[in-house]
Amino acid sequence: MAAAPHGLLLVVSGPSGAGKGTICGLLRQQLPDLGYSVSVTTRAPRAGETDGINYFFKSAAEVQSMIADDELLEYAEVYGNYYGTPRRYVEEQLEAGKDVLLEIDIQGALQVKEHYPEGVFVFIVPPSLDELSKRIYKRGTDSLDVIARRLAEAETELGYARKYDYIIVNDVAAKAAAKVLTIMEAERYKVSRTYFIVDEICQQKEK
Amino acid sequence: MAAAPHGLLLVVSGPSGAGKGTICGLLRQQLPDLGYSVSVTTRAPRAGETDGINYFFKSAAEVQSMIADDELLEYAEVYGNYYGTPRRYVEEQLEAGKDVLLEIDIQGALQVKEHYPEGVFVFIVPPSLDELSKRIYKRGTDSLDVIARRLAEAETELGYARKYDYIIVNDVAAKAAAKVLTIMEAERYKVSRTYFIVDEICQQKEK
Repeated sequence: MAAAPHGLLLVVSGPSGAGKGTICGLLRQQLPDLGYSVSVTTRAPRAGETDGINYFFKSAAEVQSMIADDELLEYAEVYGNYYGTPRRYVEEQLEAGKDVLLEIDIQGALQVKEHYPEGVFVFIVPPSLDELSKRIYKRGTDSLDVIARRLAEAETELGYARKYDYIIVNDVAAKAAAKVLTIMEAERYKVSRTYFIVDEICQQKEK
Repeated sequence: MAAAPHGLLLVVSGPSGAGKGTICGLLRQQLPDLGYSVSVTTRAPRAGETDGINYFFKSAAEVQSMIADDELLEYAEVYGNYYGTPRRYVEEQLEAGKDVLLEIDIQGALQVKEHYPEGVFVFIVPPSLDELSKRIYKRGTDSLDVIARRLAEAETELGYARKYDYIIVNDVAAKAAAKVLTIMEAERYKVSRTYFIVDEICQQKEK
């Protein structure tokens, strides 16, 4: 019997302010069965956070051992705490035929690509740098200094688009999300994911 | 200024009886601007055939010289006559931003892939060998001997699916055509065809 097709690992990434969060929110609304990742972290649980739901809470030694054993698809150290994406949690869903969405920054996405190149890597870009600066400004959470730094970073980050499979311009989030859905459908017809059908057709005859 | 995107070269292929002709007919209906290829041939024009419309009628020496100069995306010799797809005619349309559809047999498609690997290669398969034999039989144009030979060929040909980008099962032609349209849309977002947008975004700032 030919292998059943795995789910797609869909990685949505892009510079800060490009709107990947909004797009991923729309995708989750439209695809309620979409799998997701629960990150590991070494930071202490906050009030209301549950282990295995919000995060897998681990000690630094545990996370370092996961890194050494290649059990994280990607990880980063932020303000002295580790954050990472456990490979097994994601792969179990994919093997069960479930698509998994990772919304992730660029450094993380490139690490995932090294570990799981058969993923589908989508880079979200703003329609213009002006628009990007407006969006970051509108959030109102950042000081002008931070905005200027984010914009400079965004320009550097745009260059990493080359390493992705697809680029989507996020002018209107709903349209951008629809384009991601189109990509997901087309990826299902990719020969690496459909060749098993040819095997099945040829095996019918041998029965 | 970044390069404007070329059209897609869409190559639809598959074994005899898989239904590529029906699917391509539907695609042309739905995309009236879809470019196409006019083949060169060394056979004599038939009544009503016009040079440059039905075929480019050439001498054997002319076609051999085109082959030597790599001016054909693919060619075959059938019953002593050459048939081929002129590269320039196709490329001019692609460069003008027009998508071009080639409906072509497997040997031809694989030759096109060698010359133009950036094309989008779609392999159409029947839902089953039983269904394939019914379809070939229903055409009523072939003797039982020819049907048996076509079926045997189809099984061999199915193995070439591996060399394509996408596999579409043609259970209902309209659905299969819709899947090809989805693939065409997704391919437009491929990084090789969209990276120019990132260049444009970054250039805006320098103005």
